[in-house]
Amino acid sequence: MFEMTIADVVDELRGVRESWRERQERHDFANREFPSRDAIAQVAAQLRGVLFPLRLGPPDLRQENEDFYVGHTLSQALQTLAAQAGNELRFRNRLFAQNTPDIDAQAGEAIRRFAGTLPGLRRLLDTDVLAAYHGDPAARSVDEVVLSYPGVLALIHHRLAHELYVQGLPLLARILAELAHGETGIDIHPGAQIGSGCFIDHGTGVVIGETAIIGKNVRIYQAVTLGAKRFPKDAQGHLQKSWPRHPMVEDDVVIYAGATILGRVTIGAGAVIGGNVWITHDVPAGSHVHQASVQHERNTRGNPSAAPADVVV
Amino acid sequence: MFEMTIADVVDELRGVRESWRERQERHDFANREFPSRDAIAQVAAQLRGVLFPLRLGPPDLRQENEDFYVGHTLSQALQTLAAQAGNELRFRNRLFAQNTPDIDAQAGEAIRRFAGTLPGLRRLLDTDVLAAYHGDPAARSVDEVVLSYPGVLALIHHRLAHELYVQGLPLLARILAELAHGETGIDIHPGAQIGSGCFIDHGTGVVIGETAIIGKNVRIYQAVTLGAKRFPKDAQGHLQKSWPRHPMVEDDVVIYAGATILGRVTIGAGAVIGGNVWITHDVPAGSHVHQASVQHERNTRGNPSAAPADVVV
Amino acid sequence: MFEMTIADVVDELRGVRESWRERQERHDFANREFPSRDAIAQVAAQLRGVLFPLRLGPPDLRQENEDFYVGHTLSQALQTLAAQAGNELRFRNRLFAQNTPDIDAQAGEAIRRFAGTLPGLRRLLDTDVLAAYHGDPAARSVDEVVLSYPGVLALIHHRLAHELYVQGLPLLARILAELAHGETGIDIHPGAQIGSGCFIDHGTGVVIGETAIIGKNVRIYQAVTLGAKRFPKDAQGHLQKSWPRHPMVEDDVVIYAGATILGRVTIGAGAVIGGNVWITHDVPAGSHVHQASVQHERNTRGNPSAAPADVVV
Amino acid sequence: MFEMTIADVVDELRGVRESWRERQERHDFANREFPSRDAIAQVAAQLRGVLFPLRLGPPDLRQENEDFYVGHTLSQALQTLAAQAGNELRFRNRLFAQNTPDIDAQAGEAIRRFAGTLPGLRRLLDTDVLAAYHGDPAARSVDEVVLSYPGVLALIHHRLAHELYVQGLPLLARILAELAHGETGIDIHPGAQIGSGCFIDHGTGVVIGETAIIGKNVRIYQAVTLGAKRFPKDAQGHLQKSWPRHPMVEDDVVIYAGATILGRVTIGAGAVIGGNVWITHDVPAGSHVHQASVQHERNTRGNPSAAPADVVV
Amino acid sequence: MFEMTIADVVDELRGVRESWRERQERHDFANREFPSRDAIAQVAAQLRGVLFPLRLGPPDLRQENEDFYVGHTLSQALQTLAAQAGNELRFRNRLFAQNTPDIDAQAGEAIRRFAGTLPGLRRLLDTDVLAAYHGDPAARSVDEVVLSYPGVLALIHHRLAHELYVQGLPLLARILAELAHGETGIDIHPGAQIGSGCFIDHGTGVVIGETAIIGKNVRIYQAVTLGAKRFPKDAQGHLQKSWPRHPMVEDDVVIYAGATILGRVTIGAGAVIGGNVWITHDVPAGSHVHQASVQHERNTRGNPSAAPADVVV
Amino acid sequence: MFEMTIADVVDELRGVRESWRERQERHDFANREFPSRDAIAQVAAQLRGVLFPLRLGPPDLRQENEDFYVGHTLSQALQTLAAQAGNELRFRNRLFAQNTPDIDAQAGEAIRRFAGTLPGLRRLLDTDVLAAYHGDPAARSVDEVVLSYPGVLALIHHRLAHELYVQGLPLLARILAELAHGETGIDIHPGAQIGSGCFIDHGTGVVIGETAIIGKNVRIYQAVTLGAKRFPKDAQGHLQKSWPRHPMVEDDVVIYAGATILGRVTIGAGAVIGGNVWITHDVPAGSHVHQASVQHERNTRGNPSAAPADVVV
Repeated sequence: MFEMTIADVVDELRGVRESWRERQERHDFANREFPSRDAIAQVAAQLRGVLFPLRLGPPDLRQENEDFYVGHTLSQALQTLAAQAGNELRFRNRLFAQNTPDIDAQAGEAIRRFAGTLPGLRRLLDTDVLAAYHGDPAARSVDEVVLSYPGVLALIHHRLAHELYVQGLPLLARILAELAHGETGIDIHPGAQIGSGCFIDHGTGVVIGETAIIGKNVRIYQAVTLGAKRFPKDAQGHLQKSWPRHPMVEDDVVIYAGATILGRVTIGAGAVIGGNVWITHDVPAGSHVHQASVQHERNTRGNPSAAPADVVV
Repeated sequence: MFEMTIADVVDELRGVRESWRERQERHDFANREFPSRDAIAQVAAQLRGVLFPLRLGPPDLRQENEDFYVGHTLSQALQTLAAQAGNELRFRNRLFAQNTPDIDAQAGEAIRRFAGTLPGLRRLLDTDVLAAYHGDPAARSVDEVVLSYPGVLALIHHRLAHELYVQGLPLLARILAELAHGETGIDIHPGAQIGSGCFIDHGTGVVIGETAIIGKNVRIYQAVTLGAKRFPKDAQGHLQKSWPRHPMVEDDVVIYAGATILGRVTIGAGAVIGGNVWITHDVPAGSHVHQASVQHERNTRGNPSAAPADVVV
Repeated sequence: MFEMTIADVVDELRGVRESWRERQERHDFANREFPSRDAIAQVAAQLRGVLFPLRLGPPDLRQENEDFYVGHTLSQALQTLAAQAGNELRFRNRLFAQNTPDIDAQAGEAIRRFAGTLPGLRRLLDTDVLAAYHGDPAARSVDEVVLSYPGVLALIHHRLAHELYVQGLPLLARILAELAHGETGIDIHPGAQIGSGCFIDHGTGVVIGETAIIGKNVRIYQAVTLGAKRFPKDAQGHLQKSWPRHPMVEDDVVIYAGATILGRVTIGAGAVIGGNVWITHDVPAGSHVHQASVQHERNTRGNPSAAPADVVV
Repeated sequence: MFEMTIADVVDELRGVRESWRERQERHDFANREFPSRDAIAQVAAQLRGVLFPLRLGPPDLRQENEDFYVGHTLSQALQTLAAQAGNELRFRNRLFAQNTPDIDAQAGEAIRRFAGTLPGLRRLLDTDVLAAYHGDPAARSVDEVVLSYPGVLALIHHRLAHELYVQGLPLLARILAELAHGETGIDIHPGAQIGSGCFIDHGTGVVIGETAIIGKNVRIYQAVTLGAKRFPKDAQGHLQKSWPRHPMVEDDVVIYAGATILGRVTIGAGAVIGGNVWITHDVPAGSHVHQASVQHERNTRGNPSAAPADVVV
Repeated sequence: MFEMTIADVVDELRGVRESWRERQERHDFANREFPSRDAIAQVAAQLRGVLFPLRLGPPDLRQENEDFYVGHTLSQALQTLAAQAGNELRFRNRLFAQNTPDIDAQAGEAIRRFAGTLPGLRRLLDTDVLAAYHGDPAARSVDEVVLSYPGVLALIHHRLAHELYVQGLPLLARILAELAHGETGIDIHPGAQIGSGCFIDHGTGVVIGETAIIGKNVRIYQAVTLGAKRFPKDAQGHLQKSWPRHPMVEDDVVIYAGATILGRVTIGAGAVIGGNVWITHDVPAGSHVHQASVQHERNTRGNPSAAPADVVV
Repeated sequence: MFEMTIADVVDELRGVRESWRERQERHDFANREFPSRDAIAQVAAQLRGVLFPLRLGPPDLRQENEDFYVGHTLSQALQTLAAQAGNELRFRNRLFAQNTPDIDAQAGEAIRRFAGTLPGLRRLLDTDVLAAYHGDPAARSVDEVVLSYPGVLALIHHRLAHELYVQGLPLLARILAELAHGETGIDIHPGAQIGSGCFIDHGTGVVIGETAIIGKNVRIYQAVTLGAKRFPKDAQGHLQKSWPRHPMVEDDVVIYAGATILGRVTIGAGAVIGGNVWITHDVPAGSHVHQASVQHERNTRGNPSAAPADVVV
């Protein structure tokens, strides 16, 4: 039924691709030199099980055989990661016309260093789990938190992604982060630095930018943005790609739902940022910032309501 | 390539796990006594088909054989649920050092009561579907609403989860709720009570807390929060875990996108809450609450704009 | 264990279904005349690969064999789409008691026209990819953008869905849109018209309504709503289902996170809409609109903070 | 690496296909008019479960819900079968340039009649299971026989296939038979007529031809052939395709391993055919036929052994 | 289309099942008390990998991580086996109206003993692999033999099945054996005792009975039967179910294709049994047994051929 | 339950593996240098579809899009084959301590040559299909033959495997052959040379050896062996691995079921070999060879039957 159309469409699509590749100088690229989203998704599931075997591993795992599972699953995940790291490095080489020798060894070394950080990363995640358990009146056990809190899932992915970012694999890191973004609605750039005991509650709509720095024991609610205020351009009119442009949040800060904090500002230790507020300047340690007021008025049947309520969160 | 690293990492990870289990007193836990997220996800898919066989069941189902499908799928789903309920009850037993006799019978009884509520639950969901159909100018048929509206999916999960919550299975309920949260961005705690004819439009970012009570025919738009204002702690400094802290929304209320309502306040019947407003006090029945004003100014080229517009929604 | 319950529940569920079908006049409907969400999801994955074979196609694809892959995958996708289109048309026929002759030919013709738009659609998407690359300081390559940016995924789905909508297949279009909504939190109605070079950053919580019209090179951040202000009803009290009710956004506009624009207003070319603002009236070309002010005060230990900051975005 | 080869090979393969289709007059054939082996394999698995739900159905099936499973699975299997039957009938139409009206109704009717024979077929299979249980000293229970005896699997497939053959669907029947042949090494043509209480032990290498007729309570061992002796040709030199050419085996016959019986001969009731014998003529009722003799001789070291042993089986 | 038929067929099928269960006294059986063929198939694949990790395990396994894979896979396989063993024991209990206490402990103990035999079993299999390598001129390496020789697959299954048989789990053993029978056409009853260095070449049609005893370094070709000659019945006319009725084959015997050896006879050490011979009596050590003669005659055109050839194999 | 056992068993299994590897000098082998059976199985399914797209390809394929399917599937299959060929060549290198340069190029070249033979191979297979159609009175169409005859499946695999064998990839060839052996019971060594128009009917138990040479239009029935008579050993007592030891069968020969032909003998053109005969010497062209005689005698009730029947096939 579609025969002529399909042949024609295939031809036209090739034309569009060729035109794009010419403009983007992508014609000489070897085909495989790019990471696979599916491969990283599989690695993510494996590493979640490696970190929390009895909660996020297979349902029939028994404690006495955990180490076999952990070792086997870890070795599979690291092999896949090393191959994908090779893809990222080869792609970057081609992109920047570099000529790095022995990319596979470099990829293997990066993943070996990454593997060495996993125990410390589990320790960090344990502080996150406790922070969620203590910070949410609805949490009944730490086990429930590990299994079902989207904020914990987002932090597992972020802490893994940040290590890949640190090891020079920003693309793998980005894919890992976007997988959590898709599942949880929490969008943390892998470059962001987040201290121990972080609790992101509900989480949908949270955005944390590449150069954000977050201290210890910080609590963040849904729809909070830690963003950039403006993007300076260089002499050629291009965005300056690496440059500190997101907030620094010190220890023990609480940021309520919908708050927007923009630019390289500092939120001082212990500050409380109210819901929906909009902040583009430093906030002193210990201060409480809240939204001004709301008007409300009666509907067509009635008289307007009185003074704004006392809206401290 | 990673051999030494892997053996070492496995050892270190075990050390971290042991330290965590010691602190959390989790060392004696039997391994299987915890529900499985994958099992609950499968049950959710089965129950969606049981409730709406010709729309959410298998594509080749025919009306004359619906009952066979419903009966077979229901029996599979309930068996899995009963097993998972046993896991939750055994885990709770261990957690609180209780010694409940005959947990499997208790789990079976809870699931049997749950099963008995399904027909009423389908009746409730029919009112939700009609509310969406009548409330959205873009809806073309009730069938489209059942198949593709995320608000309906969230309410199917919620109404199932709430029954599990009522039957004493809060962890299964929570997993069911988080599955919908992940798919739709709508985060309804299973404890929330929601009346008939509920319509959640678009839905991403909606958060409804554990003790919220919502009347009939309530309409809620994206990014609405029905949250808690503060969490009192007990004498030991722990959060008080069960205690009415979320809003009560009466019948026929409309809450527009981005509105935040916090604390045990009452939104009176027929009230309309405007977009992005922030409410921490009671709102009288029939009132309209809207955001105050926006300033706008011309860009670098020009003069500031004039008076705030009339922004009644 | 559940035997009596199950037989009873099956009977009761049938009763509820019959009652619903009677009220909705669904009793005579042929069973298959409804599209399948799973089938559309498979088509979406296939068309993503057809449009960007080396980035969203199978990982082992090689450039020299792209056309075979594209042709084979396209023919599979179009056959499935044609069958699903037939389902939609037959369902609509029944719903409106129409009697369209030769539905399969009509469905095939619609899908053939749809197929003819794919090359142009890829060209449009290339402008979106470039817009994201140039608009995000964190983007390292156009390839990364195609693979991992949720805004790009949402636009791929939207541009495909919009063509189906134009071809008279609004239900297939809706399912395609909701699939992207579920994955990205970006909710674009298939009816919306979006010009080239669109960049939706982060994206979670974005809502764009059915009759919205967006010009070229528009940038939109997370949680932006382009919604309707009110829904007029007809003489019978039903919502008027098709009628221009969403904003028109002209070329080169930037809309920051959380902004809400409601009603058939025009945002003039080059305007910048600040974060969290609430707009229900026209905005002149070139203007900057920003939120008014935030108060902040010291916590219980201290004195309130001073003047609102200068909050131009 | 293969680019040029692949394009060339694809072209050449098309040439070969076109030449074949021209010679076989297959050019105008509609593409879908042919049954699918995978579809029939799925139907076979479903019908095995329908016939023996607690032994060959899903492992978690419970007796009290058997009917739901049976009804649902049967309706799926019959729908698939009806569609495949339509494929077979349309193909035959085209092959013989017939013009049968309303093929789908004809296919549906054939499958409805087939379905009506299933209970009787289960009754027959019960006699086969008992025959195996009583005939094999190694059998411990009838349940073991149903689950693990290849002869029973072959007879399930055969009895289903024979009904399809009788209903005018020889191609579906053939596929069903070959699926069992592949799994068990037992090759029974669907046309063969087999009475109750049949036991095929071990089974590998058994061949039973299209026009064979087998009575009640017949026992057959591995590598037995019930074949044709010669194939007469018609005036044009073509084989005469339908014509009684295989043995008739009366009740209570036992045929030991490796026996070959060829032609339209009759093996009289109660006869015992010894292993490896070769028979091309009638055998009277009650007779024992055995192989003549074996010589054996000592190896290079020694003197030949004596008289042939008494080799009655 | 089938509605009435299906309801009727379901009812009739239930009637047939009930009649069967009444006659077989199966009505009170608990539903789950029967092993699952799919579960055993999965265990078989896992144990094949455990025994030969780098040849029959996952393709990406690396030598340095073998132990993790072996340990993890073994623990999964043994857990499944223990559960299936419990099913077999509970079924047997019911069948024989026994009342064994603590079946799960008994099942676990049997599987623990089974596990302890695996290293010795691998050692035995290594001798089988070498025997195949040295016995087949077409074999190029031991690795090829492990990966692709059906005789080796059959012996892996048999040696595992025999241990289960010895541990009192004949039904699990039987299923394991039939899985290999289906794949290779080699039918070895789990009760058979087979010495080291066994080589079964080609294998299709080989049948080895329950009480056969085979010595070391025995070579067996396709279609060889080691069967029973007759089955004595007890006073009630039932077959005597356990009783030595199959051949004993001593060390270093070779049995060529198609040979049939029946009854409790002894084939002396070093004997060579020619193809297609039929043996029902003892064969002295060192002797060669071969088939007598073949006549051949010219076709209709010509004169018969002369004397039988010298047919020593 | 198994913890200690598992750790112990893992240790012991490693010990056995190490001992084996030491004796076989397998310790230094790189891990991946061995083909994967699963990968070859996938390639086999793909190539079956490439050769007969409308019969063995996907059920929804349409004739007008065949070339896209063929090209895409072929390119996938050849890439996998080239990788597996590299594995075989690297393994052989290690095994024989060779040092072949640039194995990947060599593997690619072998697979390119293999690909070039596919059109001719399809032509050959068409002659096989016609031979089956004309040779079997039960065959209703050539399409049925392609879809369901095990002999055709075995020849597809053999003709592919033989080309791999010719290209110097005997291990890939062997795996391909064993896959067909497992499915059909037909065991053809990839080295065997088989002319056009070959028909293997029923097929279970057929064995054709490595150096067999078969002419055109040969018909072979089940359980036929074309084997070796004896295996000469070299001075070291090892089997001589390559050396003509199987029969040569000239054009137009028919070999009936169970016939065994051993050694480097010639079966002259047009000869007919009867069922179950045993041949170890040349057979003149045009001759008919048949089995001698069978005795039969009455059972205990009666007198022996008379003269042997006239048993010409």
